[in-house]
Amino acid sequence: MGRVLGIDLGGTSVKYGILHEDRIISRGVVPTEIEKGTPQLIEKLKGIIRSGENVSAVGIGVPGIVDETQKFIYECKNLFWKEIPLARWLEEATGVEVFLDNDANLAALAEQQAGLLKGINNGILLTLGTGVGGGVILGGALYRGSHGLGFEVGHMRIGYEGIPCTCGRQDCFEVYSSATALVRHYNERAPLPVREAREIFDGYQKKDPLGIQSMDWYLDHLADGVVNLINLFDPQRIVFAGGVSLGLNLVLGELEKRVEQRKFTKALPRAELMISSLENDAGIYGGALLAEAMRKG
Amino acid sequence: MGRVLGIDLGGTSVKYGILHEDRIISRGVVPTEIEKGTPQLIEKLKGIIRSGENVSAVGIGVPGIVDETQKFIYECKNLFWKEIPLARWLEEATGVEVFLDNDANLAALAEQQAGLLKGINNGILLTLGTGVGGGVILGGALYRGSHGLGFEVGHMRIGYEGIPCTCGRQDCFEVYSSATALVRHYNERAPLPVREAREIFDGYQKKDPLGIQSMDWYLDHLADGVVNLINLFDPQRIVFAGGVSLGLNLVLGELEKRVEQRKFTKALPRAELMISSLENDAGIYGGALLAEAMRKG
Repeated sequence: MGRVLGIDLGGTSVKYGILHEDRIISRGVVPTEIEKGTPQLIEKLKGIIRSGENVSAVGIGVPGIVDETQKFIYECKNLFWKEIPLARWLEEATGVEVFLDNDANLAALAEQQAGLLKGINNGILLTLGTGVGGGVILGGALYRGSHGLGFEVGHMRIGYEGIPCTCGRQDCFEVYSSATALVRHYNERAPLPVREAREIFDGYQKKDPLGIQSMDWYLDHLADGVVNLINLFDPQRIVFAGGVSLGLNLVLGELEKRVEQRKFTKALPRAELMISSLENDAGIYGGALLAEAMRKG
Repeated sequence: MGRVLGIDLGGTSVKYGILHEDRIISRGVVPTEIEKGTPQLIEKLKGIIRSGENVSAVGIGVPGIVDETQKFIYECKNLFWKEIPLARWLEEATGVEVFLDNDANLAALAEQQAGLLKGINNGILLTLGTGVGGGVILGGALYRGSHGLGFEVGHMRIGYEGIPCTCGRQDCFEVYSSATALVRHYNERAPLPVREAREIFDGYQKKDPLGIQSMDWYLDHLADGVVNLINLFDPQRIVFAGGVSLGLNLVLGELEKRVEQRKFTKALPRAELMISSLENDAGIYGGALLAEAMRKG
């Protein structure tokens, strides 16, 4: 088996790594800077691919909707992309085969192969990052839906505060349970704004009242979204990944308590709630697994 | 093939019918009257079973959660039942084999066998009646979940008006999209209360402003729930059954318009929305199919 490159194209950063014999042997990260425009981001991706020595194929996880050939992007709302033949552009520029998939689908595949969804028949991966995404394993296989939309869990309406969402609706899971949402909620109340969710976790640990309040607000909505998923899918396990999952370690017991109180029936066991052990590598791993599965020969 | 009896045990009425060579050859309906107590309702069920001539097995759809042996009810919130060995009680009294399943699961199986989910790989049946229930076909098979909870779609939180739900949460799909919800919304505003959703559909057709207003409120929330399901499951088709589905015929175009506006991506086709052609027979049919599948020999 040769080397493959996995790229995790996020709204904030582009993470990448080379997989060789099931191990990530080198890795890197650069800022996405979508505000500098699409051509510059495409150049960045070309540079990452060109720098990968002896790489036979590339798999990229994108925060959006990809066609079934895994070459074409219908839509990436967080990157302001619509109908972009990303794989063809990158292949023409680099001569290396490129495949695409939804980032959360790839992270779910990575969890299934190497993480906490291994051996799980029905399980959900939730990525709590710039947005909220997810992948769902049903009957042991990734569920992709009927029209390529898959599992757009971030756009399940759950709430009531009237917060607008990029999808055009209000009160989607994403506007309550992303890292962005936690930071927004905190900054609307704070004398000094923070830039990252991590700073709020620090505040929470130091018993900063605003940090405690924001984490409480966050947990309350996350519990509502998780209970919805339990009532709809009755999975064995829900695994949390993405930026917020690091802080979720501090409050997982409280989340479980709220989920237990709100789930539909108390008579039956419910999904285990766990925090991904792949941390930030799930996207890289998933992209590399895609490249390995799809490449010729 | 002998005769089997299907019973649809609803919060308002008990419908039943005998299936013989794929046709319902006789049928009946009696009021549930749960307020008269559980023993009286059990007697009613025994009477229905005893009256079925040459019936070799019985399948009952219950509005709740059933164990995997299909003999025992964990919980039926609308009937105020908890942990009831219904099948055993009825078998001991009548000598006929009895099987149970969730009513919406059975209706989905009936749609798959004889209705609008025939040949559909990924499809959803939504029953809009006393509550909101549903069954989901994924990869051509009924999805039952990991712990017997299945698809409790009525308890997906979607809303923001602060309406309490029987499950203990607020703002579940059911408190907006059941027939009960439509009647409640109308009666809170009407000088003369109605008893059934049907009367509101009549008012809507006669251009009664309150009927129009209530149907508009109803459609708005139903569209939100349907968009959630499209964003989560990306099904080929969603079929509506139950009391409200009859009136939904009048406004299906408007529902489609709102769903189209709100779905996550406009670039992909979405689920077809259709009204069940089995009407009130889906539950009876599903119960009978269960009995046929499970009976000995």
